[in-house]
Amino acid sequence: MFKADIFPSIRIRKTPFWDRVVEAGVKSCSVYNHMLMPVRFETYDIDYFHLKEHVQLWDVSCERQIEVTGQEATKLIELLSPRPIKNLRIGKCLYFPVVDQHGGMLNDPVLLKLSETRYWISIADSDYLLWVLALVAAYNLNVKVFEPDVSPLGVQGPKSDELMSRVFGSSIMDLKFFEFQAYEFAGKEHFVSRSGYSKQGGFEIYVEGFENGIPMWDTLMEAGEDLSVRAGGPNYPERVEGGLLSYGTDITLNNNPFESGLGKYCDVNSTPKCLGYEALKRVFENGWEREIRSLDVEGDKVPLCHVPWKVTADGEFAGNVTSITWSPGFKTNVAIGMIEKEFWNPNTEVLVHAPDYPRKAKVRDKFFI
Amino acid sequence: MFKADIFPSIRIRKTPFWDRVVEAGVKSCSVYNHMLMPVRFETYDIDYFHLKEHVQLWDVSCERQIEVTGQEATKLIELLSPRPIKNLRIGKCLYFPVVDQHGGMLNDPVLLKLSETRYWISIADSDYLLWVLALVAAYNLNVKVFEPDVSPLGVQGPKSDELMSRVFGSSIMDLKFFEFQAYEFAGKEHFVSRSGYSKQGGFEIYVEGFENGIPMWDTLMEAGEDLSVRAGGPNYPERVEGGLLSYGTDITLNNNPFESGLGKYCDVNSTPKCLGYEALKRVFENGWEREIRSLDVEGDKVPLCHVPWKVTADGEFAGNVTSITWSPGFKTNVAIGMIEKEFWNPNTEVLVHAPDYPRKAKVRDKFFI
Repeated sequence: MFKADIFPSIRIRKTPFWDRVVEAGVKSCSVYNHMLMPVRFETYDIDYFHLKEHVQLWDVSCERQIEVTGQEATKLIELLSPRPIKNLRIGKCLYFPVVDQHGGMLNDPVLLKLSETRYWISIADSDYLLWVLALVAAYNLNVKVFEPDVSPLGVQGPKSDELMSRVFGSSIMDLKFFEFQAYEFAGKEHFVSRSGYSKQGGFEIYVEGFENGIPMWDTLMEAGEDLSVRAGGPNYPERVEGGLLSYGTDITLNNNPFESGLGKYCDVNSTPKCLGYEALKRVFENGWEREIRSLDVEGDKVPLCHVPWKVTADGEFAGNVTSITWSPGFKTNVAIGMIEKEFWNPNTEVLVHAPDYPRKAKVRDKFFI
Repeated sequence: MFKADIFPSIRIRKTPFWDRVVEAGVKSCSVYNHMLMPVRFETYDIDYFHLKEHVQLWDVSCERQIEVTGQEATKLIELLSPRPIKNLRIGKCLYFPVVDQHGGMLNDPVLLKLSETRYWISIADSDYLLWVLALVAAYNLNVKVFEPDVSPLGVQGPKSDELMSRVFGSSIMDLKFFEFQAYEFAGKEHFVSRSGYSKQGGFEIYVEGFENGIPMWDTLMEAGEDLSVRAGGPNYPERVEGGLLSYGTDITLNNNPFESGLGKYCDVNSTPKCLGYEALKRVFENGWEREIRSLDVEGDKVPLCHVPWKVTADGEFAGNVTSITWSPGFKTNVAIGMIEKEFWNPNTEVLVHAPDYPRKAKVRDKFFI
């Protein structure tokens, strides 16, 4: 690979927590939604075991929000996704695959219902705001759509309940998975949800106002000193073994939600207002040719994966691997790939063409958890 | 600032030229349209003087193309911008500010007319594709819109005519500024335009097919050995002194084209089909409150600029500086800023609030060229 600085500019936005991230010794970062995202502080292995044992603060400011407010907010939201929102209650989060008119995935955000006329779409890495704004322009909808000054701070790991209780009070323990509620901090209300981009449990604090970032960070760090709290970030091995998809890596505009393994979130019959309704109904009825799978890949640690690696079975094309890394916990290479129908059954033996040498691999029935 | 690796993933795309970029010793890079962009190989100063004297190859693959093809291609293009395309000939490029229905800038691409029913929109850093695709979906237009497998390679600097003649033949010298034509290389046609993100003259080769990247790079490097050709990239001091705007840095969705200094490209009277027509007509008639300006900033070298720096005049708010750096050629700090009307006249004296100490500055009538 290569070693190079990221050139600092306004275009690649600094986060409210960034000064603390630098002080914590960030070693590797990414750019996500035109914003810096720290992903490594020690080695991925050390970060991984710490995350599974203690609690970490994650600067995930780059999970930007699209706020949709107004009389036609629900009407607009219903255009976007094949997932029904009819029964969605205020204070609930919903994993929300969003598609174009051909059923292609435009992003895989989380939807938060703030009121009957107000939503946040918490987006993955694409300027999905532009798609939503264009629909507002074309259909002349009576809504306001914009990116609010909100920066999520992840609190992830098994000790996150304890840490969050100390700062926000023990009532936060009652929050169920994918529920959110407003909590006061520094004289301002901030939504807190039980959610996050890890399988280790935890919360996301939607910090309102850039200026509240550092005080929030410092308060949590101080309160968690005896819990070994430290800075962290989305951990590559932990996300790949746990099957947390990365939009732009594992799924793109060329994939529909069924291929993306998100079929269970698509009720194509009850969402006729979705722009992709007709297309997805056809996919649902006729079936699809490939789907996301977890793979267990033999051999020693694989190199870094910067382009899709071909997968074959008996010399035939069987798909691509898009995320792959050594799991220090499961002591094997774990992968996410888009596997052709003929080969997607559990225990199918395939060959993953890593750039160093091809490795035997097995398609799994579920992710490593 | 900070030192950190960029985590390699498929989401941050590798370019066709990337192996050569790494071999050339890239020192600093950026992420642009979800793709790596090299911006520094030695110091910015060394790169700057080399660019002004010799010729450089720039991996600007990240200038992605949006291809619009079909019967309603022109109809769609006319929705996008207040710049008329009625007289645009095939083989011409056009700087093409694109706006939403409120006149806000969504990107500042270059439009290439390939045929009467085929265009490329060569975009700056935003997923403008999503805006265009949404309009196609909403208006049900008879066009195909997609990102082709095309990666621009910049050939920039005073010796670029000589280098390009050697590879593509001397007819390439007849190409006028912002004209393009197809040239054969390795049995395939590639468009070449006289254009680029520097003021030193040069070309952009729209390399067709990822697999042709390395052969194109190697051929140019070999042909230019005695011309001191080497790898380069958009040079920060050269772009800021020359007034080449950066979308996301100097201009955003919050600015209209008049504020962005692009008023001369907007004929709001003759482009009623543009979605921002009504809004921009109002701006044109009523005037605007701030506009992009070049500034000459006193004092020694300024630090890196990662957030907008406030500009004041006699204690009053006068605007923001968004790009600022030491120019090794002009031996002063050069800046681009959005300056309030009251202070935008040439020679107005202002104070730029750099994070180390405030510096006296002067608003200029034009950029440094």
